[in-house]
Amino acid sequence: MGDTADCEIIEHHVEEEMEKEAARSRAASPRPGSVAAAEREGGTQSSHRLLAYSDALISIIATVMILPVAHTKMGHDEELRESLQLLLTTKIAVYLMTFLIVTVAWAAHIRLFQVIVRIDDCLALLNLACMMLITFLPYTFSLMASFPENVLGILLFCGCVMVIGVIQAVIVLYAFSRPFLLSEQIQISENRTFYKHHILKVIMRVPIMCFLASVFSFIFFQLSYALLAVVIFLPYISRSLKWCRSKAFGAAPESPDSAPFYSHLTDEPLSKERVEAFSDGVYAIVATLLILDICEDNVPDPAAVRERFGGSLTAALRAYGPEYLAYFGSFATVGLLWFVHHSLFLHVTRTTRLMGLLNTFSLAFVGGLPLAYQLTHAFPPDSRNELEAVQVSCVIIFFAGVFQLAIWVAALHGERESLHPHVRYGGREHAFMLAKLSLYPCVALGTFFLTCALSRFSAAIFHLMEMAVPLAFLLLRLLVRVGLALLRLLFCPGGPEPRGAGEGGEG
Amino acid sequence: MGDTADCEIIEHHVEEEMEKEAARSRAASPRPGSVAAAEREGGTQSSHRLLAYSDALISIIATVMILPVAHTKMGHDEELRESLQLLLTTKIAVYLMTFLIVTVAWAAHIRLFQVIVRIDDCLALLNLACMMLITFLPYTFSLMASFPENVLGILLFCGCVMVIGVIQAVIVLYAFSRPFLLSEQIQISENRTFYKHHILKVIMRVPIMCFLASVFSFIFFQLSYALLAVVIFLPYISRSLKWCRSKAFGAAPESPDSAPFYSHLTDEPLSKERVEAFSDGVYAIVATLLILDICEDNVPDPAAVRERFGGSLTAALRAYGPEYLAYFGSFATVGLLWFVHHSLFLHVTRTTRLMGLLNTFSLAFVGGLPLAYQLTHAFPPDSRNELEAVQVSCVIIFFAGVFQLAIWVAALHGERESLHPHVRYGGREHAFMLAKLSLYPCVALGTFFLTCALSRFSAAIFHLMEMAVPLAFLLLRLLVRVGLALLRLLFCPGGPEPRGAGEGGEG
Repeated sequence: MGDTADCEIIEHHVEEEMEKEAARSRAASPRPGSVAAAEREGGTQSSHRLLAYSDALISIIATVMILPVAHTKMGHDEELRESLQLLLTTKIAVYLMTFLIVTVAWAAHIRLFQVIVRIDDCLALLNLACMMLITFLPYTFSLMASFPENVLGILLFCGCVMVIGVIQAVIVLYAFSRPFLLSEQIQISENRTFYKHHILKVIMRVPIMCFLASVFSFIFFQLSYALLAVVIFLPYISRSLKWCRSKAFGAAPESPDSAPFYSHLTDEPLSKERVEAFSDGVYAIVATLLILDICEDNVPDPAAVRERFGGSLTAALRAYGPEYLAYFGSFATVGLLWFVHHSLFLHVTRTTRLMGLLNTFSLAFVGGLPLAYQLTHAFPPDSRNELEAVQVSCVIIFFAGVFQLAIWVAALHGERESLHPHVRYGGREHAFMLAKLSLYPCVALGTFFLTCALSRFSAAIFHLMEMAVPLAFLLLRLLVRVGLALLRLLFCPGGPEPRGAGEGGEG
Repeated sequence: MGDTADCEIIEHHVEEEMEKEAARSRAASPRPGSVAAAEREGGTQSSHRLLAYSDALISIIATVMILPVAHTKMGHDEELRESLQLLLTTKIAVYLMTFLIVTVAWAAHIRLFQVIVRIDDCLALLNLACMMLITFLPYTFSLMASFPENVLGILLFCGCVMVIGVIQAVIVLYAFSRPFLLSEQIQISENRTFYKHHILKVIMRVPIMCFLASVFSFIFFQLSYALLAVVIFLPYISRSLKWCRSKAFGAAPESPDSAPFYSHLTDEPLSKERVEAFSDGVYAIVATLLILDICEDNVPDPAAVRERFGGSLTAALRAYGPEYLAYFGSFATVGLLWFVHHSLFLHVTRTTRLMGLLNTFSLAFVGGLPLAYQLTHAFPPDSRNELEAVQVSCVIIFFAGVFQLAIWVAALHGERESLHPHVRYGGREHAFMLAKLSLYPCVALGTFFLTCALSRFSAAIFHLMEMAVPLAFLLLRLLVRVGLALLRLLFCPGGPEPRGAGEGGEG
């Protein structure tokens, strides 16, 4: 029996090899000579796992900055609104800005490795150095937030960004000096030097602006903040400018030489695989952030149990009851939001930069969930604070869900390229997908208004919602199917396949 | 230009579809009818992303239990040995046991989803419920460690494991009731009912033993600990027993009906993709654990800076210098160990359960690295504590590296099936791979003995090692190549391809 398994493995491996071969011969003029030479040198490897590891690192770093926010101690007596204001001014801002900066760095990383499709040991080590500096960015950012008038934070941040830029430039130069590392499209192109300069120009723009910002910081530091803001939003700004221009003047008058990458078009494709890997990382770390705190803080001290609870562990643990509830609620919500995301991306065939941006916004709100859930049990029951915490949670869930819905709308906009036929308008999964995506926003909105009306039962309503939503997901297909069957019976009682048009598009 | 990108995407998608088609038709008797019917139902999906998300969750949970260990406050005056003893008794034990339990649960998850290769919404939700309970296990385990004589911890743990078992049984029953979800091998088999019972039997063994343990806990709780230990080590015990038997009696007299999965053979294949994903998760979270602490704790308070350092942020940050060094050292070490792991698994074509086990041990030591690095800067310079912290770090690095080397040795043992031809004995990459894998163990061992001899310079030696190792990795290929070229010149000065035999095996 072992042989069967072996055969399968070997067969699988052979297929893998064949796939690689196919990928190589896909280009118009395959250069098996150069690739084979490179392979014989023993240096090149598929970049898949390096990218997966980078995605994991970046998603963790983007998300963990919610922890300093969540760990801020809040007194029970002061109003949540005041402490929230305090939080909002620095820590939440740091979290959101970090998330944005890190995702910008991540997007740059994706672009770079859409051009460089194979790696060798040297590139792997350079990439690790780059990752180390990216993971250090949140710290420089917290320094800037805590000491806005001190230039040290700006200098550190600019220094990191400049070194990252230099490393990326070295990566590009190295890869172009060994063309078998590049994507087929560039390998066979005659404009390789043009592409190299184009990419280097795009990459070096950010470090140069950071250099200017660090110089200005000694003269007039407010200006350097403005410059940094421009740096961070540069991709978005230039992208929206170009988009506006292309909309205004019709088809953009692009030179035939211009690259299909580093183009700043909103519908420039973004590796779907990496968007998924990054999202998985964020959802996974967010889902586990609360149990991390629980494991550390909620194991009672044996001495305290003996003194205060007469040795009864059950009584001691009962005090933590709300925190377990918060954990399970948070895990279920994050898990189900992941489930919706997963369902959505199953049907998305191509990710654009716009969809990536919407996904980033959705993930930024998901990252706030553990904080929101922790707040729901941090205050005494029936207090105004508790009500506000519950409402903040609803708002966060609402926005996380709405941005997921927006991804779908963006995909529907270019549905011929971006969606599987059966979730397009009139496709047989269209209604079900819509129901899945709108469940959380609708429930969150409903809970929000219910808690406004029945403020005394806010916590009860919230917990009821938590328990009801997983059930709703289980029954959703049934409900949608019943609804569609009813519609079918009403409108075309005879036809067994009333949606032939939608099915026909499937091929 | 956009069209080219689109074409590529579409082409890529078409290829993906073709791959899936190929995977379907790979089995001897493809049942396109049933699969197509299932697809038309709109329910089934590839399980790839669900598994990636589960791997991320499990790897994070397995690793974060090092945080309570790392956050234990240690006084500067007491001996590290004493505090280490205190730590070793509970927290490190909790960490290691959690790591072991969680990886056992992960191995069970792999086996389950090697049988079930496609999922639908219902399975995805059941799997999320299962994940929620797995992430709760570490907490029940910390309760057991803190209150060993209280039955509550045992009951909670057993309860979790039993519910996980029941959910897994439901998953199996559900999947067997919809055969298109199963792997081709089972789908086409006539013994499907036999397989179902076999798998259910293996799965339900653990919850039943936990049920017994929870019953015994009321009578004689020491016995239930023994039972739990058996449960945890059950796969290892039965595997090693069967291995011994098969070695003793030659070829195992297995019935032809016995399944190629759930077989407890050490060379039963383990999904290589999932071993990689799990390892990536552990390496990524370990690499970021220290920056997480730094972001939270090492941003000085503005008031304190004004009072104690006369407003000089640079002076205030200088106090944290050793912690930054610890961060970069830890990140570099983890990153390079990942790099070695990555290089190794590039050449491994098939992962067995034994290799998975060795990988788990290696990862458990990697998980201890942040703690070790944190210790190296927690004590005053030139103290006995610092020396011991440095030595503990060396020991951890040594074992993490040695277990990686052991994976390679295990792969070499069955090299025909497990390794690419060019890293086998005599292959052209063999020497380089050996050099890569043995660099960290050798350096760690060397540093350990150097610090024993020159105990006064322990910290300096350690930091020098940290900086030297990345350089060594960069130059390693060069060094090995020079060495091999010298050997080549010495032994066969004429032949340009002296390793023709190794190359020939490549096909």
